[in-house]
Amino acid sequence: MTTAPDPAVRAYLADNAKGYLDDLVEWLRIPSISGDPAHAPDVRRSAEWFGGALRDAGFPIVEVWETDGGAGLPAVFAEWPSNDPRAPTVVVYGHHDVQPIDPIELWDSPPFEPIVVGDQLRGRGAADDKGQILFHPLGLRAHLAATGRTGPAVTIKLLVEGEEESGSPHFATLLRDRRDRLSCDVVVVTDTGIWNRDTPSICTAMRGMALCEIHFRGPAGDLHSGSFGGAVPNPLTAMAGVLAQLHDERGRVTLPGFYDRVIDLTDRERELIERLPFDESEWLANARSTAGAGEEGYSALERVWTRPTAEINGMWGGHTGAGSKTIVPSEAHAKLSFRLVADQDPGEVQAAVRAWLPARLPAGIEWDLEFESGGVRPCMTPLDHPALQAVTRAVGRAFESEVLYTREGGSGPEADLADVLEAPVVFLGVGLPDDQIHAPNEKVDIPLLLRGAEAAAYLWPDLAQTLRR
Amino acid sequence: MTTAPDPAVRAYLADNAKGYLDDLVEWLRIPSISGDPAHAPDVRRSAEWFGGALRDAGFPIVEVWETDGGAGLPAVFAEWPSNDPRAPTVVVYGHHDVQPIDPIELWDSPPFEPIVVGDQLRGRGAADDKGQILFHPLGLRAHLAATGRTGPAVTIKLLVEGEEESGSPHFATLLRDRRDRLSCDVVVVTDTGIWNRDTPSICTAMRGMALCEIHFRGPAGDLHSGSFGGAVPNPLTAMAGVLAQLHDERGRVTLPGFYDRVIDLTDRERELIERLPFDESEWLANARSTAGAGEEGYSALERVWTRPTAEINGMWGGHTGAGSKTIVPSEAHAKLSFRLVADQDPGEVQAAVRAWLPARLPAGIEWDLEFESGGVRPCMTPLDHPALQAVTRAVGRAFESEVLYTREGGSGPEADLADVLEAPVVFLGVGLPDDQIHAPNEKVDIPLLLRGAEAAAYLWPDLAQTLRR
Repeated sequence: MTTAPDPAVRAYLADNAKGYLDDLVEWLRIPSISGDPAHAPDVRRSAEWFGGALRDAGFPIVEVWETDGGAGLPAVFAEWPSNDPRAPTVVVYGHHDVQPIDPIELWDSPPFEPIVVGDQLRGRGAADDKGQILFHPLGLRAHLAATGRTGPAVTIKLLVEGEEESGSPHFATLLRDRRDRLSCDVVVVTDTGIWNRDTPSICTAMRGMALCEIHFRGPAGDLHSGSFGGAVPNPLTAMAGVLAQLHDERGRVTLPGFYDRVIDLTDRERELIERLPFDESEWLANARSTAGAGEEGYSALERVWTRPTAEINGMWGGHTGAGSKTIVPSEAHAKLSFRLVADQDPGEVQAAVRAWLPARLPAGIEWDLEFESGGVRPCMTPLDHPALQAVTRAVGRAFESEVLYTREGGSGPEADLADVLEAPVVFLGVGLPDDQIHAPNEKVDIPLLLRGAEAAAYLWPDLAQTLRR
Repeated sequence: MTTAPDPAVRAYLADNAKGYLDDLVEWLRIPSISGDPAHAPDVRRSAEWFGGALRDAGFPIVEVWETDGGAGLPAVFAEWPSNDPRAPTVVVYGHHDVQPIDPIELWDSPPFEPIVVGDQLRGRGAADDKGQILFHPLGLRAHLAATGRTGPAVTIKLLVEGEEESGSPHFATLLRDRRDRLSCDVVVVTDTGIWNRDTPSICTAMRGMALCEIHFRGPAGDLHSGSFGGAVPNPLTAMAGVLAQLHDERGRVTLPGFYDRVIDLTDRERELIERLPFDESEWLANARSTAGAGEEGYSALERVWTRPTAEINGMWGGHTGAGSKTIVPSEAHAKLSFRLVADQDPGEVQAAVRAWLPARLPAGIEWDLEFESGGVRPCMTPLDHPALQAVTRAVGRAFESEVLYTREGGSGPEADLADVLEAPVVFLGVGLPDDQIHAPNEKVDIPLLLRGAEAAAYLWPDLAQTLRR
C-alpha cells in the first residue's frame, strides 16, 4: 500500500530535469579517476565542482575535506540544517571519484564525453556514483519547493568521498576525525541499485570480511622424493587435508562457533527474497559456472546475500613451473577470505581460525597465520527498522510500486559508517544491474535518476516524523 | 659364511693399484659434463679415452656408440667374449658423464684437477661413476691373472653411457636399437654404493615412477567472491578435497588397486633391513624434518625403499601474488608423482588415477589429467635370485664380511635395462653415502674401489658356474 505521488514534487522535477542533466554532463566531463595518480588534480577539480553545485543548490555549509593531511584525495562535506530543532539528522553518503576506463577500445563513445542515447546517459561515473549522488540536491530542492519550506525537514549532511574506487584507504580515519561534525541519526547510502526497472528494491545488508594467509612449513628445504618421499610429511598434502575440512558435507564452514552470531533469515525475509524475479540458470550463465554449490538448505541468492562463507582465493607451493620436479616441497601457502554476515565479528573469526587450524595438522608441519588488518564488519538493517520503513515508503511512492529487498554479497565502507557514526545505515540507490559500472560503456537510466530524486524528496519529511526526537 | 679371499687376486690388485689410480686421475681430468652443451666435446673425449683404456686392458671389441644419430652424447660399448661356449653373458652398466660443478666456490680443490687426500681421491666423477666403472677392467684383469685364463669366465659386455646425468634421454632407444648386441643373462649395474665402510651391502631394487599434472576448472573466469562466493564451486576447494583423499588415515594411497601388484616384504627382507645400522633421528635431521610420516606399519627405510607413494610436488591456483584478491578462482592445478615398487605398472597407475579422480569432484568442476610419458617401471631382484646370491658371495669375499641389502627409493635407467634386455639386474657398487656425488668436493674411497675390483674378479667365475647354460 503506497501513498500517491506528490504532484508538486513531480512538477518541480519535470521543470528542473534538464538543468540537472546539464549539470551532470558537466561533472561527468571531469575524469576523476582516483586509482590513477595522474588524475589526482581531476579528483580535486571534481570535488570543487560538486562543492559549487551544492552551494548553488542552497547548502549553507560546503567544505572540501582533505584526507591524509592532503596526501589523499578530498571528500566533499555539505550541511543544510533543518530549522526544526527537533528534526533528526541524516548523513548521505556517496563518492565523486570514478573507476579507470580500460579497456578503452571497448567503449562506444569516449568515457568522459557523456552522451544521451534514448533514456540513457552514457559516460564513466554516470551510475557509479555521480549521477546518483547528484540527484540529492535536486531531490532536496523538490522537497523544499513542494512543501514551501526554506530549510529541509531533516538536517542533511552530505559526505561524498573521493577514494571509494581505490578502496577508501583514508575513509575510516576521516570518519573518526570528523565524528562530531558527522553525528547523525541515520545514514543514507546512495551508491547501489534496484533489482530491475520494474522491481524497485532496497539493499538492507552488506557482508563483512576477514582475509588471511596461511603458511605451512614441512622439511626445512625441498627434498628428493626418491630419497624421502613417503616418509616425511608433505606440506602440500597437509594443506589439502586442512582446507578440505574447511566445509562439512553440508557445505557449512567448520570453524568453531562460526555461525553462533549469524542472524538467521526470518520467514518473511525468505519469502521476500523468493518474490524477486530471479532466474538461477541465467545467474549461473552469468557466472560462467556449469553448476551451483554451497550451503545446504539455501538458494543461490540466500547463499551470496545472507550466509557467511569461507573461500580459498589462492594456493601455491612446491614446483609450479614447466615440467616435473620430484620433490617433497618445503612450503605451502593459501589465501583465504571469509565473507561475514551480521552479527559476526571479524576478530572472532580470526580467533576461530587460530583455534581450528593446528588441530588439523600432522606432526612435522609448522604453520603461521597472517590476517589482513581487522577485517570489515558486516552490516544489516532489520526490515522493521523505522528508517528502513521510511525509505521503503519513499521508494514505493516514487515508483508507484511495491518495494522488495535485496542485499549485497560484497563488502564496502558502509560498515565503517555504521560503526563509527553509531547509526543505522539504509540504502537509497537507483542503479540497474546492467549499468556496466566498472566496465566499458557505463550508463545510467535518466528516468530512474529522477525517481531517485523523487524518493529523496519524499524521504526527508517522512524521516522527520519517523525519527522525531 | 664367506669364502676366504684369493691371495692371487689381491696380489694382482696390489701390484696394479697405482696404475689404476693414475689412469683414473687422467680420466677425471676430462670434464665430461653431459648437462652443459659446451662440454659435449669433453664427453666425446671421455668416451674415446675410456675406449682406449678398455683396448689397453685387452678388450677385443671396443666401439663408441652414437646416440640420436650423433646429436646425443656417445656411449662406450666393449665386449670380451668368454672362450667357454657354455659361459653366460653379463652386461655391465655404468656412465662416463659427470654432474655439473656448481657451486664452484664450495670446492676445496678444482673439480677437474683430482687430488689424493689420505685414502680418498677428490674430483668430479671420482665416485659417480668413473672411479667405479674403471674398476671393471682392473677386476677383469685380476680375474684373468689369478685364474691363468686368457679370456674371462663369462662373456663381458660393458655399456657405459654418456647421458646418465642428463636423464638418459636416448638410453631406452639405444637399448632397443642394439638389443641383439646386448643380449645377456644378467645385468650388473655399477653406479651405486654400500651402506657404510663397515657394512657392505647390495642394492636389490629401485622404485619406478608415474608423473602427472591435474587441471581443475570451475567458473570460466575468476569471479568476485562478494557477488558469487558461497554459491558456485571453487576449484581450489575442490582440489583440496580431492587431494586430501589421496591417502587414507593409515597413510595408504587410495587409488583403486594401487597395492594389488605390490610384492610385500618377506619376513627375511624385513629382518635384514632392520639389521642395517640405521639412526632414524639422524636421518630425519638430514631431511631437516621435525617428524616422520607415512604408511602405518612400516619403518622409515621400508617406506622409502619398499612402499609405493603418492606425493604432491606442486600446487597452484587463484591469486598467489602480494596482497589479497577476493575471488572465486577459475582454475587450480597440481603436479603429482607416484613412486612405484615391483610389480606395479605405471600404465595401470595412470588408469587408476583416471578412475579415481572424477568420482571425487563436485558438480561444476571440470578436470583433465596429463601424464608425463609412460613412466618408469620399478625393478627388484629377489634375494634368492642366483645372480644376486653370486654377487653377495663375491662382495662378502672381497670385504671379508657379511653382506646386507639395501634398495633405492629413486628411479633410474636400470628399469629400462631389465625391460628391454629381459634380464635380471643386480648392483655392484662401492660408493659411500658421504661421497658428495652431485655436490661440491665429490670424493671416493680408494681402498673401496679396489674392493669393488676384487668383488668383480670373484663374481665372474662364480656367475659362470651359477648361470652355466
